[in-house]
Amino acid sequence: MSSFSIGVDLGGTNLRIAAYNRASGILETILLPTRLAAGRHAVVEDICTGIRGLLERWSGEYSLTGIGIGTPGPLELPAGRLHSPPNLPGWDGFGLRNEIEACLGMPVIVESDANVAALAECVLGSGRSLGLDSLCMLTLGTGIGNGIILEGKVWHGANGMAGEAGHLTIDPDGPACGCGSYGCLEAYASATAVRRIALEAAAAGRAPGIAALAGRNPEFTTLDLSDLAEQGDADAKRIFEDVGRALGIGIADLVNTLNLPLYVVGGGLANAWRLFAPTLLAEVRRRSYVYRLTEPGSSVLDSGASEGTRIMAAELGADSGLLGACILPYTMSKTKQDGLEARSSRRA
Amino acid sequence: MSSFSIGVDLGGTNLRIAAYNRASGILETILLPTRLAAGRHAVVEDICTGIRGLLERWSGEYSLTGIGIGTPGPLELPAGRLHSPPNLPGWDGFGLRNEIEACLGMPVIVESDANVAALAECVLGSGRSLGLDSLCMLTLGTGIGNGIILEGKVWHGANGMAGEAGHLTIDPDGPACGCGSYGCLEAYASATAVRRIALEAAAAGRAPGIAALAGRNPEFTTLDLSDLAEQGDADAKRIFEDVGRALGIGIADLVNTLNLPLYVVGGGLANAWRLFAPTLLAEVRRRSYVYRLTEPGSSVLDSGASEGTRIMAAELGADSGLLGACILPYTMSKTKQDGLEARSSRRA
Repeated sequence: MSSFSIGVDLGGTNLRIAAYNRASGILETILLPTRLAAGRHAVVEDICTGIRGLLERWSGEYSLTGIGIGTPGPLELPAGRLHSPPNLPGWDGFGLRNEIEACLGMPVIVESDANVAALAECVLGSGRSLGLDSLCMLTLGTGIGNGIILEGKVWHGANGMAGEAGHLTIDPDGPACGCGSYGCLEAYASATAVRRIALEAAAAGRAPGIAALAGRNPEFTTLDLSDLAEQGDADAKRIFEDVGRALGIGIADLVNTLNLPLYVVGGGLANAWRLFAPTLLAEVRRRSYVYRLTEPGSSVLDSGASEGTRIMAAELGADSGLLGACILPYTMSKTKQDGLEARSSRRA
Repeated sequence: MSSFSIGVDLGGTNLRIAAYNRASGILETILLPTRLAAGRHAVVEDICTGIRGLLERWSGEYSLTGIGIGTPGPLELPAGRLHSPPNLPGWDGFGLRNEIEACLGMPVIVESDANVAALAECVLGSGRSLGLDSLCMLTLGTGIGNGIILEGKVWHGANGMAGEAGHLTIDPDGPACGCGSYGCLEAYASATAVRRIALEAAAAGRAPGIAALAGRNPEFTTLDLSDLAEQGDADAKRIFEDVGRALGIGIADLVNTLNLPLYVVGGGLANAWRLFAPTLLAEVRRRSYVYRLTEPGSSVLDSGASEGTRIMAAELGADSGLLGACILPYTMSKTKQDGLEARSSRRA
């Protein structure tokens, strides 16, 4: 019997639950609003009801490999506990994994949303296209998510909290970040930051085109802003060039530290890749001699340019979170997560 | 028969070659000057002559596990080739591993000096004391070396060039760095940088105590400067506080990205740990919520503070490079390095 998995993409706004088979891809998707106002137990019940429905409908045809859940972080592992997640207000200290397992009566694997997106991009996106099993992904959204995949597995670090490159310091005296620090990458290159920077420029009278956009549509998105830049608005173009510079400083830090073969930029703002890629790549080249030695086309390395450092936009789009949750059971078995827990208890 | 290994610590000034046994430690050390002026082939011959002598004297009593060589980087792996190493002028493109193997007629393992120091600190120093098998080490010397050990093994990255955290950007508009970038950690917290900053302060008339030190001893070291600070000189103290701030920004970047259980500061300048640790730790706490959640004493984590993030001075001193080269054959077999090479050729 062929196998299937169930993946859950828990977001601050939407909840998506899917059945997945490696040969067929996604078999069925359930889409619900995340009922944050009804409380976290109501959301857990919605998750479990959805999972049960998919189990009922697909367990006849396929055998279940496992259930993967992607959640906004910070997520402590192996405990599966959330710590003040900005996108799930009121969930601080919530033991998400234990709560779902108690409600469902079955084991599940939990993982932060940025990590599952990176896993999907590695296994099904640019990693697969290039034949690579390691990458670092930045997801530019409300904040900046980050996932690091080493040799096909999510790198968790000691407490499940690796991959917070959104809080790399770009300029120590830069704007305040929600994390309590100053000048974090997230304060320059998240969708939230880009809107803030655009509104500041408009309010200061330095960007008439952006001011007109904000006048027509006060809720304008970064996509609207990138359209304006594509139409030639110099102020909008400059904002994306600055996004590229900040991303370039952050990615150079990552290249210098990790020397991975692939760095991927995803999330909604990655649609503007063409607008910020030139300054991004110039900044990485300037700030990383590891990159200069290994960039595509360099013939310095004995192993040749085929082993070099690639920096690109994500291949997968908005589905990467759901797909990553679905493939989680295929890449990290429950046994492994239990093993981590056993080791942690022994050492405590 | 018990086993032994041979380790080589190749430096820009000194060459040290030792025989090592896990139960007894270092059995014998050969110390020579590195004859850079005589050319790289002369240095390779000195290395091989030393190794042969140790083989002759110790192969009767023990069986050889392998030969490890720590070298100034950047070192490309698996090729074992150097790329413009600042501390070995004229060695650009030199295939160090192949040259030694050809001269010696035996396989050797080559590794960058910062990586072998980190390995020694993990296996024989603070890692062993704490029962941890992962750490990130910064070695503050002429430059800033960096080695990352994940689960007992050196993390090489795609081309052997991981662990260049000395080139994390601390301030994008900071002082020029030898790597071609600006505001690198190395430009703030290496011994070279500290001397430069001290001399600048003295020359500007802002630091009479340092000016007096430089007048008495133009070749003063960072140890002389830390003595001055310990004696209460406010200007010297401020320099070490600033070193701590720069290290704190860099280590916060590493904590946020890697979430390792241990970060270690070594090298000669680490003797001044007491002078720069307070600002270092304050800066990491400010810039890393991962650290705030996991710092020793925090009870936020389910797994408890015993699983938290530790930042400390290295336990091993100047011998870590030689010890690391000696234990290299015990942690990474030649077979593994050959395996990497085979995979690289297949993919090229």
